[in-house]
Amino acid sequence: MFLNPLTCPGSDGSTHRRPSLDFSERYFRQTVDHFNFNSMGNGTFSQRYLITDKYWMEGYGPIFFYTGNEGDIWEFASNAGFIAELAGQLRALVIFAEHRYYGRSLPFGTDSFGVPQIGLLTVEQALADYAVMIRELKQQLGAADCPVIVFGGSYGGMLSVYMRLKYPNLVAGALAASAPVLSTAGLGDSAQFFRDVTADFESIACECTDAVRGAFHQLRELAQHQEYSRIQTQFHLCKPPSSAEDIHQLNGMLRNAFTMMAMLDYPYSTHFMGNMPANPVKVACETMLSGPDLLSSLRNTAGIVYNSTGLLSCFDLYSLFVECADPTGCGLGPDSLAWDYQACTEIDLCYESNNVTDMFPPMAFTQRDRQLYCAKRWAVVPRPDWLKTQFWGDALSTASNIIFSNGDLDPWANGGVRKSLSSSLIAVNISGGAHHLDLRGSNDADPESVINARKTEADLIAQWVKMERPVFLPFKKIIFYCN
Amino acid sequence: MFLNPLTCPGSDGSTHRRPSLDFSERYFRQTVDHFNFNSMGNGTFSQRYLITDKYWMEGYGPIFFYTGNEGDIWEFASNAGFIAELAGQLRALVIFAEHRYYGRSLPFGTDSFGVPQIGLLTVEQALADYAVMIRELKQQLGAADCPVIVFGGSYGGMLSVYMRLKYPNLVAGALAASAPVLSTAGLGDSAQFFRDVTADFESIACECTDAVRGAFHQLRELAQHQEYSRIQTQFHLCKPPSSAEDIHQLNGMLRNAFTMMAMLDYPYSTHFMGNMPANPVKVACETMLSGPDLLSSLRNTAGIVYNSTGLLSCFDLYSLFVECADPTGCGLGPDSLAWDYQACTEIDLCYESNNVTDMFPPMAFTQRDRQLYCAKRWAVVPRPDWLKTQFWGDALSTASNIIFSNGDLDPWANGGVRKSLSSSLIAVNISGGAHHLDLRGSNDADPESVINARKTEADLIAQWVKMERPVFLPFKKIIFYCN
Repeated sequence: MFLNPLTCPGSDGSTHRRPSLDFSERYFRQTVDHFNFNSMGNGTFSQRYLITDKYWMEGYGPIFFYTGNEGDIWEFASNAGFIAELAGQLRALVIFAEHRYYGRSLPFGTDSFGVPQIGLLTVEQALADYAVMIRELKQQLGAADCPVIVFGGSYGGMLSVYMRLKYPNLVAGALAASAPVLSTAGLGDSAQFFRDVTADFESIACECTDAVRGAFHQLRELAQHQEYSRIQTQFHLCKPPSSAEDIHQLNGMLRNAFTMMAMLDYPYSTHFMGNMPANPVKVACETMLSGPDLLSSLRNTAGIVYNSTGLLSCFDLYSLFVECADPTGCGLGPDSLAWDYQACTEIDLCYESNNVTDMFPPMAFTQRDRQLYCAKRWAVVPRPDWLKTQFWGDALSTASNIIFSNGDLDPWANGGVRKSLSSSLIAVNISGGAHHLDLRGSNDADPESVINARKTEADLIAQWVKMERPVFLPFKKIIFYCN
Repeated sequence: MFLNPLTCPGSDGSTHRRPSLDFSERYFRQTVDHFNFNSMGNGTFSQRYLITDKYWMEGYGPIFFYTGNEGDIWEFASNAGFIAELAGQLRALVIFAEHRYYGRSLPFGTDSFGVPQIGLLTVEQALADYAVMIRELKQQLGAADCPVIVFGGSYGGMLSVYMRLKYPNLVAGALAASAPVLSTAGLGDSAQFFRDVTADFESIACECTDAVRGAFHQLRELAQHQEYSRIQTQFHLCKPPSSAEDIHQLNGMLRNAFTMMAMLDYPYSTHFMGNMPANPVKVACETMLSGPDLLSSLRNTAGIVYNSTGLLSCFDLYSLFVECADPTGCGLGPDSLAWDYQACTEIDLCYESNNVTDMFPPMAFTQRDRQLYCAKRWAVVPRPDWLKTQFWGDALSTASNIIFSNGDLDPWANGGVRKSLSSSLIAVNISGGAHHLDLRGSNDADPESVINARKTEADLIAQWVKMERPVFLPFKKIIFYCN
């Protein structure tokens, strides 16, 4: 979807991310293939998780379980401070579980991204990992009667929803922040995403989107006349572009910068995926409107994302951005390979820009484009109807105890559930909120809306925990079966 | 579990079973591997199903979908007449879907039972088959708004429960007849099954079970003295036994006859799995108490099952009964191979007889026995906790719209749900009912209890169908996405 776009391939989740966190890092012996007893036997791999009992009322307090998504689990733990804050209130044990094929949870080590090894990367396997882990850790930790609440943001939020749908025996409720469960299941509008990115910039000023449109228009003109040298100069490219493909790549890279700023439009500076200033959309618009010419402005605006440190002397088109089956970006490094595979199989991300409903160059990405790319890259054929079948699409009415939170600045929001579906399927909308702002720790710059959203979420989760507890613990007759 | 024990290996579901049925036999192009995009690509196989629209109010009436279990789908369609009767009342379309790896739904043809091909035989794959089939057939048949109710008996009933648990987006409710969802998940007592078989015979007369115990005791004495020739004569064996293994096999074969009669203790003669007289348990007890000596009586009682036609001149120990990972019997022929594999992987059937709580010889079958057998036979290690994790074990409270019906004569009954868990998780207990008697067509010999059970079931299903229909059909905005 969008994680670690600026984490260098060699990055290993090093200590600078972890200073204030109380987590221990552990590994869980996980079944490699939950759905075929012959393919791997009962072979296992080491799945990483983070855990802290700092807040826990041992054996009684709930378990907060983050359903890790497409990246190093420390990254999520470092950017989901709300969970620890709430754990303090509700005396919860906190676990962040890393998703198979990401971070250090590689079933086949460095061979994990080959065919056929990559084939065991599916949503179903990841959910089964979490189910098995929850079940076993509860036993190991003396937490058999502790209700489990799952948390996740973005794709991780989708996984939280799915855990509650598919494993309510293990999970009492889910907070799914910015989870595009509808659009990724093919229930949506392919123009939605980049239209909503555009709307974020337009809300600053129409001049801003006009300037972006104008800049992309100028770039197109230059490209049509094959003024590649001029393009190189204007965009500080390390090498001159030399083909329509290079221009396409440049457009993709530039569009991606706007996507990142719209998603991460937090009111304070963050280091979630690279470094982002406070209110990056506003900063971007100011930059777009301040340069000597539109192309320089566009370059400088992209630089907010790609050169936040100011250390790059030129932009390398193909190392700063990698085109993949997710038009919103797969990021870089090994994690991006895994996400590309997921976008080629179960997760439908056929978003396009069209220059009519958005400010970007027309860049189509149809199911046909996706099929061709995925067959070539991973030898797979996507199954666009599968998530609707397997994870219910929009037929969610029989579910319960799920919060779908979304911020209105987030281009992912309209791919998710924006209206409550029942008294226990609650939509929480956060005015002025970017991508899962509510999961982040409290900040003085937080808008009132997110403070209220977190309060609503805390109240609902406290209710679920209370409901899940037996009124009394009856003596259970234990029958040993099949010893 | 127990199907087709007397169907000869070469049997092909021939026409004698189908005379009064209105079904068309069709094939569905089904995905071979739902959970790995690389292992088989998007390869497909032909999955058989039976369909009739004789009763259907086209495009409006509900769909009754039988989740086929461990055998030829015609066998179930021929022995589940209640579904057609109810279809007549509720104007339903009726579909019987064959389970992968059974009957003619063999993903790899005659190679299906090899390793690793057999690895795609799992409950999860079977459920995904049904989910995909329901979704696509609804579209093909112009039945998009028709509520789907699933039906199943025994393992098929387990599948019906699981469909409602995992795919409530597709299935509005489930009638699970005689579905041992608890015992097969390891939540039970390993002595339960054969104790309950014994109880059926005891309820006829204590003399009956005394005679069975006495006969098995005499057999043990003969075996201990290696009087193999005498045993051959008494039991009309084609070959004399010559080892403790042969005696073990004989015990298993004899015990299996009692199992079959207890399960199929219907008040009228049936041809469900072989031929069974009316009230076979009563017939068995009469036979046990009428012979010149106990061993002859035991032989003649087993003959009710193994020689119903009277055509066999001798019993071949190893062709009439095959020992497998299911101590209640896997049956014979290719279907029995598939069921053996399922009993070696997900489905836990560690039942034992102990001669204390039951009338049979002590025959242990521990998890350790199961592990050793399954590793050798199929190169797999069972996962005894998996069904509890994946299909919720007894933590069913968040589910809805399921009927768990059981007959009190059925030794499977106490492995299932016997008490209602909520206002929409309803236990229906049928006094005097054998294995999923309620699914069978009405018969003059039906006890009042099953007539009432079917009425309760019909009422609940009618309610579910009604609830599922939208009060009005609002204009739906259709957005075409990612064409």
